[in-house]
Amino acid sequence: MNEFTGVQHCIILHCCPWISWISDVIVVVSPENTETMKTIIEKYGHKKVTVVKGGITRHRSIFNGLKVFAENEFSSHLLQKPEVVIIHDAVRPFVEEDIVAKVVMAAKEHGAAGAIRPLVSTVIASAADGCLDHSLERARYRASEMPQAFLFDTIYEAYQQCTDYDLDYGTECLHLVLKYCKTNAKLVEGTADLWKVTYKRDLYAADSIIKDNLSQQVCVTTNVKETLAQVGFLLPESLKSQIKVEAISQSLSKNDSHLQNIISGQCYNFVCVNDKRCAIQEIQELVDMLEKSNIPLLYPVVLISAHLDISENNYFSIGMEDLTMIKKFARETKKKNILVYGLLIQCKDPLLLQETVNSAAALIMALIKDRNPELIGQLLVA
Amino acid sequence: MNEFTGVQHCIILHCCPWISWISDVIVVVSPENTETMKTIIEKYGHKKVTVVKGGITRHRSIFNGLKVFAENEFSSHLLQKPEVVIIHDAVRPFVEEDIVAKVVMAAKEHGAAGAIRPLVSTVIASAADGCLDHSLERARYRASEMPQAFLFDTIYEAYQQCTDYDLDYGTECLHLVLKYCKTNAKLVEGTADLWKVTYKRDLYAADSIIKDNLSQQVCVTTNVKETLAQVGFLLPESLKSQIKVEAISQSLSKNDSHLQNIISGQCYNFVCVNDKRCAIQEIQELVDMLEKSNIPLLYPVVLISAHLDISENNYFSIGMEDLTMIKKFARETKKKNILVYGLLIQCKDPLLLQETVNSAAALIMALIKDRNPELIGQLLVA
Repeated sequence: MNEFTGVQHCIILHCCPWISWISDVIVVVSPENTETMKTIIEKYGHKKVTVVKGGITRHRSIFNGLKVFAENEFSSHLLQKPEVVIIHDAVRPFVEEDIVAKVVMAAKEHGAAGAIRPLVSTVIASAADGCLDHSLERARYRASEMPQAFLFDTIYEAYQQCTDYDLDYGTECLHLVLKYCKTNAKLVEGTADLWKVTYKRDLYAADSIIKDNLSQQVCVTTNVKETLAQVGFLLPESLKSQIKVEAISQSLSKNDSHLQNIISGQCYNFVCVNDKRCAIQEIQELVDMLEKSNIPLLYPVVLISAHLDISENNYFSIGMEDLTMIKKFARETKKKNILVYGLLIQCKDPLLLQETVNSAAALIMALIKDRNPELIGQLLVA
Repeated sequence: MNEFTGVQHCIILHCCPWISWISDVIVVVSPENTETMKTIIEKYGHKKVTVVKGGITRHRSIFNGLKVFAENEFSSHLLQKPEVVIIHDAVRPFVEEDIVAKVVMAAKEHGAAGAIRPLVSTVIASAADGCLDHSLERARYRASEMPQAFLFDTIYEAYQQCTDYDLDYGTECLHLVLKYCKTNAKLVEGTADLWKVTYKRDLYAADSIIKDNLSQQVCVTTNVKETLAQVGFLLPESLKSQIKVEAISQSLSKNDSHLQNIISGQCYNFVCVNDKRCAIQEIQELVDMLEKSNIPLLYPVVLISAHLDISENNYFSIGMEDLTMIKKFARETKKKNILVYGLLIQCKDPLLLQETVNSAAALIMALIKDRNPELIGQLLVA
């Protein structure tokens, strides 16, 4: 089973997690972007991906992609011809495995299948004078979206029979298999996340959705004196109302395997609670583990070093050297896509402890949700 | 000329700036939200707005809105019947005056007009078995969007002649005037910002667009000793590459009229550079001016108190009392929708001055763009 994208610019390739039962992925890109795409694929360690040069229209690009399985023109090694081929747009990065599986099953039965969505606006036809000719009854029509799936032989035959006019002006693969192979595609209801990232606002939305997805879970490690154990308990409790929390209550090194499991479980947020003023050594350990895990390769990881301050005096003073050191450290780890922030939790007044902890939790959530690279190395105070 | 919204929930009423040549605005809301809407209108000081109870469908709601100009049923005082009426959806908050004017002019000439956009996806018709029946040629069709405008008599006549079926299952006003008044509406190309805020992702996008719009201009006031004047010059320069900067180089009170002009020019971002450790008194003045201006009523204002530190010693130490005071102050001003942040700019090493100023500018831009209410009262260090 093979998937490939029919668009020219596959910007957010890594957003689409590869699905295990897909045997080959063909990425069709414009000739001038071929090298960039190959670099991306290598950087992110994507397997089973073949890059193919696109044509000047959507249909010509898709046809080029299909030829990899049938002709020697575009690839030195011919890939094994699949039973079913999935066609998808890279501008729909949030596709779920579920809908991909559904169109594939439907294509096996019907020869072709595609995702559809209800129309958001009424569709109208205009007359030559720029006035309304007629409007379509919204309930009778659907928007044709991606992914679509086809028996390989069916879609390939359709493309071989295509006219130049089809290849230059057409856009709909379902239309081609209907016209040339008399195959009526099965239509499968898709979800809202199949939308096309088209306008600047869609990039904003995509950014927020990704950040949302990364803010589902936080791992809190506490390595503090017994007198401070209460905070180590209260903080995860306060966070739990907003996010899934994994709490580890001993020192990091003793919990390597537990922490390792959390990291490999795709956790992108870490809070290290300690009673040292400058716990760079402690968080360096975690940075090393994260680096080995490849987790920060795809998305930035948030790492908050939370320091419990129980000093009695009314002044907290931090040497510029310390501050500079944290900043420098944060700048270094940023290169590894790990965003380090400092957080000071004042625990002097036991009566205000709960309030302070809640305030700390709110700051932690804000840092996790924003993942703002400009604020790394800053010390926030709860 | 009148505008009204045909949707039930007018969430973002204040995003749509009222256009001076519109004489009345009718907001149609579901009966259970009438009171909330009235509160919103009062809170934001909207004039010329009448709230009307909606019906159970889109067309019934619009009809209710129109009746305000023709029947006594819905309003104690009949509003003067307009020549042209504009129909708009509250879920399209980013409509520009330009497109509104265009549909109004076209409606005067043709009796009806509506904004259209190219189709983003192919439109297809499905057969009874859930398979593709046929696909429409994308280039021949358009998506019908809002705003639309009509000669009042034309649209009102159309609604009066409507069947119950039309009122219950129809959605397209252009269709009604075509069917009942033989009026072929003029179609006007709209811009991408007419999109419907429909899904969660659209709320994310709307949020980012609003924040973007608010981050276009910053006012920097500097009130520092002459030895620090260089920073007062360098900081605005560094910001200028990213944002429009209005710089005021004397003390606030002496520049009331200049500052007043900037505030009334819809500036939503202020940086007060000073050499006092805790300049609450200075920024209080600005807070008072902002409060009087009503600027923070619609959107949060960002106010950054930047402190230049030239102390020779290697430690910067801030008393907890100071920090607590800034936080408390920020919490108070937040109630007025003014977000106060602290920024410390270290100016010890002349060789590093430009670097420090650039870092300060980056932090300022991050605070302005994010407008994060959780980070108020924090002291960031450049």
